[in-house]
Amino acid sequence: MRPHVLIIGCGFGGLEAARALRAAAVDITVVDKTNHHLFQPLLYQVATAGLSAPSIAAPIRHLFRAQRNVTTLMGEVVAIDAAARTVSLKDGAVLHWDHLIVAAGATHSYFGRDDWAPFAPGLKTLDDAFEIRRRVLLAFEQAEREDDPARRAALMQFVVVGGGPTGVELAGTFAEIARHTLPGEFRRIDPRQARVLLVEGNARVLQAMPERLSERAREQLAALGVTVRLGARVTGIDAEGLDITTAAGPERLASRCIVWAAGVAASPLGRALVDTTGCTLDRAGRVVVGPDLSLTGFPAIQVIGDLAAAQSHTPGKAPTPVPGVSPGAKQMGRSAAANILRRLRGEATVPFRYADYGNLATIGRNSAVVDLGTPAGALRFSGYPAWLFWLFAHVYFLIGFRNRFVVLLDWAWAYWTYDRGARVVTQKR
Amino acid sequence: MRPHVLIIGCGFGGLEAARALRAAAVDITVVDKTNHHLFQPLLYQVATAGLSAPSIAAPIRHLFRAQRNVTTLMGEVVAIDAAARTVSLKDGAVLHWDHLIVAAGATHSYFGRDDWAPFAPGLKTLDDAFEIRRRVLLAFEQAEREDDPARRAALMQFVVVGGGPTGVELAGTFAEIARHTLPGEFRRIDPRQARVLLVEGNARVLQAMPERLSERAREQLAALGVTVRLGARVTGIDAEGLDITTAAGPERLASRCIVWAAGVAASPLGRALVDTTGCTLDRAGRVVVGPDLSLTGFPAIQVIGDLAAAQSHTPGKAPTPVPGVSPGAKQMGRSAAANILRRLRGEATVPFRYADYGNLATIGRNSAVVDLGTPAGALRFSGYPAWLFWLFAHVYFLIGFRNRFVVLLDWAWAYWTYDRGARVVTQKR
Repeated sequence: MRPHVLIIGCGFGGLEAARALRAAAVDITVVDKTNHHLFQPLLYQVATAGLSAPSIAAPIRHLFRAQRNVTTLMGEVVAIDAAARTVSLKDGAVLHWDHLIVAAGATHSYFGRDDWAPFAPGLKTLDDAFEIRRRVLLAFEQAEREDDPARRAALMQFVVVGGGPTGVELAGTFAEIARHTLPGEFRRIDPRQARVLLVEGNARVLQAMPERLSERAREQLAALGVTVRLGARVTGIDAEGLDITTAAGPERLASRCIVWAAGVAASPLGRALVDTTGCTLDRAGRVVVGPDLSLTGFPAIQVIGDLAAAQSHTPGKAPTPVPGVSPGAKQMGRSAAANILRRLRGEATVPFRYADYGNLATIGRNSAVVDLGTPAGALRFSGYPAWLFWLFAHVYFLIGFRNRFVVLLDWAWAYWTYDRGARVVTQKR
Repeated sequence: MRPHVLIIGCGFGGLEAARALRAAAVDITVVDKTNHHLFQPLLYQVATAGLSAPSIAAPIRHLFRAQRNVTTLMGEVVAIDAAARTVSLKDGAVLHWDHLIVAAGATHSYFGRDDWAPFAPGLKTLDDAFEIRRRVLLAFEQAEREDDPARRAALMQFVVVGGGPTGVELAGTFAEIARHTLPGEFRRIDPRQARVLLVEGNARVLQAMPERLSERAREQLAALGVTVRLGARVTGIDAEGLDITTAAGPERLASRCIVWAAGVAASPLGRALVDTTGCTLDRAGRVVVGPDLSLTGFPAIQVIGDLAAAQSHTPGKAPTPVPGVSPGAKQMGRSAAANILRRLRGEATVPFRYADYGNLATIGRNSAVVDLGTPAGALRFSGYPAWLFWLFAHVYFLIGFRNRFVVLLDWAWAYWTYDRGARVVTQKR
């Protein structure tokens, strides 16, 4: 019997770990709740009707069709037993493992206010993206039929909560839809009158970026027609709008379409790991891992990606936290695979070291900010060149040639015509 | 005030009617339950993961963006008042009309056995297509995890009920997926062992075709790996399979994935028309219309498309029924629009005359049958040339250049690689 490597979750981390073991004499099982690997950086394009779901999602078993040591299972892991070396699936099935990689990712968090969820969906899955697409497009449909000016204004006010990369992308694209895609298609309303608000609790958007680029992003958002509200804390969300508090005091924003891009919480599987290994979670619910991404006392269990509170170890320097971005998850996946191979050879594991190639965020048409670390120092730019760089970087990393080609085609079309091809809403949602 | 033309439903008939009135001095309102016009002939490709939904669905208001006399409303008509000349929407709104075109189409019918619906979805909407896609792909996922041979066989037996064009397309494509797309992606099952059954109550498939082409279709289905069961009447459907009766007696077919392509029923709006005009419905629930597609005593109401039991009137010949195909709906749409213009000019209306350009059905990869009426007589062919003809005819009629191009690209890719790009299943369905 060859050693059995079980990988929970096929996001960037899980996919990369399995691929890194392609030539290894191990049997791999990849378990995921869905049947597809999702290219999450472009999920906002599905939510804003720019891309269809199949453009950014590839069937997991199709990605592994040529890698004969991988078995793909669609299922949801609900419990982990570190002593018996098993996991239990929701339907009762039990899978044994010799090495476990937990790459279950993160979901959105409402900071204890889950009652806000129905009024402000987040964006993590394709279902989330369809729900947001539905709400945005139906708000315009309802506004076209609404005679009351106040209700119409509420239908045409879109609020994005959270000024991180996802919030900035969504707000910028909503404004583009209102200003460029929809005008001319309505007879009673003027979509250009729609207001898009980006509400952020901190003093600037894109906290992970240098301050100058945050300022550039804010300027580009304003130029696209987004009203950025900084230092605004959300205190309540309901079906009719949201309450915020700023330095000027409390304020009410009427809106029938609110999107939540503010909080991220690690997968509940972190809790399952605590139960069986006694490991600790950080404040965001992420599993605190050792230098080699394994759990203290359980070298056969590694946690990677958004579920891991991991640190980067550079000899001679103090450890630094690994940011929750896709290159981090991919690098952790490769590191976890390499450490499994080392352990199989009886060698010591190697601490994880994160190579930071920089940071980029898109804002909307022709607008983005890029912050690259180069040997010659930081390279920072914004606007159209940054947008082109962002575009090609993302298309390059898209899984599968066909997707890349279709996505480029869709974008070229959308760019020249302002049309957004995926403006389809199905009945039930 | 210009005369107000209200069109209910934006399928082939409604869309064509509105377009035919583009230069007329009328105000047009198009009301549809959904926000998109659906290219129904390719819906089976969405159900079988060959195309994404946006490839075959275009936002209705986008199609009319340049036609300034059209207002698009998304809403569901629940009642019609012929005397007051109004329709009522589900949300209580009331719309007045001077001329009414009812083009509400058809849905699937279980011949009074609606309890079968949960176990055998039909294929009329995008939601239906997603549901069928989900069932087919999840059946293979579950089979991969199933150890019991009988249950595994049931999971890998796919049954299509109804040997009309939709049933034939679905069965042929299911067989193609099992034989060509999925092999190599599973580790425990061999998708080529899947069985695809096409169950038809009559003695041949594609009843609307000449007998020789029905026989060609049956041969091509068999070559693709479909088991065609003719003269088989369905007597029961449940979660585990279906009961059929043939000349040899009753039989049980175990299946966890059954698709209903057997019956079509006209929209319930036919009943609403009976209530207000006293018109009559035929056995399929279709509204019996006069020669000019209007209702007796109500010249301002015309019924077109699948909802109409219409006849074609050729001078000197007996009237013949109009088949329920998209060219029929389109021609009725143009005729209804022309008759409205005639009435506005004070002229007499003209009876509808259906121009029959023939009939074609695809079966699967390289397989189709074509029956064309030409001045030189009937032109009938099958196999690869028929499939090519079908392909280009359908792409040609697809609405919008972008869709056409993306669909051709998707097909070219699928043809050469056997890959099907839209194999995405979302969580909730």
